[in-house]
Amino acid sequence: MGSYGKVPEAVIRRMPKYYRYLSDKLLQGEERISSSRMSEELGMNASQIRRDLNCFGGFGQQGYGYSIGKLRDEIAAILGLDRAYGAVIIGAGNIGQALVHYSGFACEKFRIIGVFDVRPEAIGKTVAGCAIRHVQTLAEFARQNRVDLGIICTPKEAAQETASMLCRLGVRGIWNFAPTDVEVSRGVRLENVHLSDSLYVLLYHMKQQGDLTEGTK
Amino acid sequence: MGSYGKVPEAVIRRMPKYYRYLSDKLLQGEERISSSRMSEELGMNASQIRRDLNCFGGFGQQGYGYSIGKLRDEIAAILGLDRAYGAVIIGAGNIGQALVHYSGFACEKFRIIGVFDVRPEAIGKTVAGCAIRHVQTLAEFARQNRVDLGIICTPKEAAQETASMLCRLGVRGIWNFAPTDVEVSRGVRLENVHLSDSLYVLLYHMKQQGDLTEGTK
Repeated sequence: MGSYGKVPEAVIRRMPKYYRYLSDKLLQGEERISSSRMSEELGMNASQIRRDLNCFGGFGQQGYGYSIGKLRDEIAAILGLDRAYGAVIIGAGNIGQALVHYSGFACEKFRIIGVFDVRPEAIGKTVAGCAIRHVQTLAEFARQNRVDLGIICTPKEAAQETASMLCRLGVRGIWNFAPTDVEVSRGVRLENVHLSDSLYVLLYHMKQQGDLTEGTK
Repeated sequence: MGSYGKVPEAVIRRMPKYYRYLSDKLLQGEERISSSRMSEELGMNASQIRRDLNCFGGFGQQGYGYSIGKLRDEIAAILGLDRAYGAVIIGAGNIGQALVHYSGFACEKFRIIGVFDVRPEAIGKTVAGCAIRHVQTLAEFARQNRVDLGIICTPKEAAQETASMLCRLGVRGIWNFAPTDVEVSRGVRLENVHLSDSLYVLLYHMKQQGDLTEGTK
C-alpha cells in the first residue's frame, strides 16, 4: 500500500468511523454492504462515503456494494493497523492507568510495552500486568525495546519536557493527553486529546441550545 | 451574552485553545497581549485569531492588544463556563474513574455529582469521594438533583441504551466515551470522544511519514 499524500485531513478523520462500523458488521456475520445502507446507518451522505473511499483508490463495484471483510482490511491497511506498534505511557495517573486498561483499541498489534512515572509511590506497582518504572530508566528501555509511540499522561507542567525526551529517543508518534499543547521534532507526528476542550465545545452548544429554547418561550 | 447562531464549528473548536492559553498567561501574571504575540505562541495566523474573536463581537482595540483577563472571561462566557453544571457518569470502569479524578476541567462550576454502574462489585464503592450507585437509582437521583449532563463510559453494547435513558431523564448534553456512535433526542447536544479514532489518525500519519522517509532512502 503506497502513500496518499493529498488526502484531506477531514477524510482521514472519517476513516476510523468506517473502520469501527465495518468491524461491527463483520462481528454480526454480515458479508456485503451497499454504500446506500452504510449511508443510512452512519447518518452520512452516500456520495461522500464513495468519495472518501475513492481517495484511497476506491473499492467495491457499482451495483454490487462492498465486501465488508475486504473493505475493512483495506481501511485497516490505510490506517496502518496492519503493522505492529510498541507504545510507552509516561504518567501513570488516572488517565494513564485507564489507557493501559482500555480495551477500545481494536488493533491487536498495538501494545503498551512500558509505563513510566516519577512519583516514588507509583514506581514498582503494576497496572494490568505492566510494572511502573522510573522515567530515568526510559532511555535504557528504549534502547532495548522498539518504542514507536509515546503517550503523554503527565501533568501539563511536565508535558513539553516529556515530549522533547520522547522525540530524542526516536519515537515516531506522540499521543498527548496532557491539557496543554506541546511541540515535537520534525518527522514526529502528534495527536492531542484535550478532554476539556471537547467538554467546552459541548457546554458551548448546550448554552446555545438553552438560549434558543428560552428565546422561544 | 446572546446566542451566536452562525459561528462555524471550526471556530468554536478553536475557542478552548484560546481559553487554555489565556488562562496560563493569567497565571503567569500577564495583563495584556497582542494578537501578533498570541499568533506566534499559538502557532496560528494572527488574522485568523482576530477573525475568530470577531465572530463573537470582537474584543480588544486596534494597537492596544487584548486585556488577558477580560478576554479570558469573555471566552469563558461564550463557552458557557460562567454557568454551573451537574454531571453524572454512567460506567465506573477505568475511563469513568479517570474522569471523576481528572483535574483538567478548569471550570470550577462543572461538578460530577453522581457515578453509576450496574456491576454488583462496583456498587457502594467510592471514587474521589463519590459513591457508586446502581443505574436503577438514576431516575430517582435525577428527580432530586439537577443533572445537566450525562457522561457515558459504559461498554459499547450499553451505550445507546444509556444515551436513551439520559435523554428521557432530561439531560441537555451527553459526552460519550463509549467506542461507538449513539443517537440522542432532538435538543440534546452530543460530543463524542472516540479515543481509538484519535489513535488511528495518529497511526495513519505515522505510516505515511514512514513510507515517505523510506521512499527517499
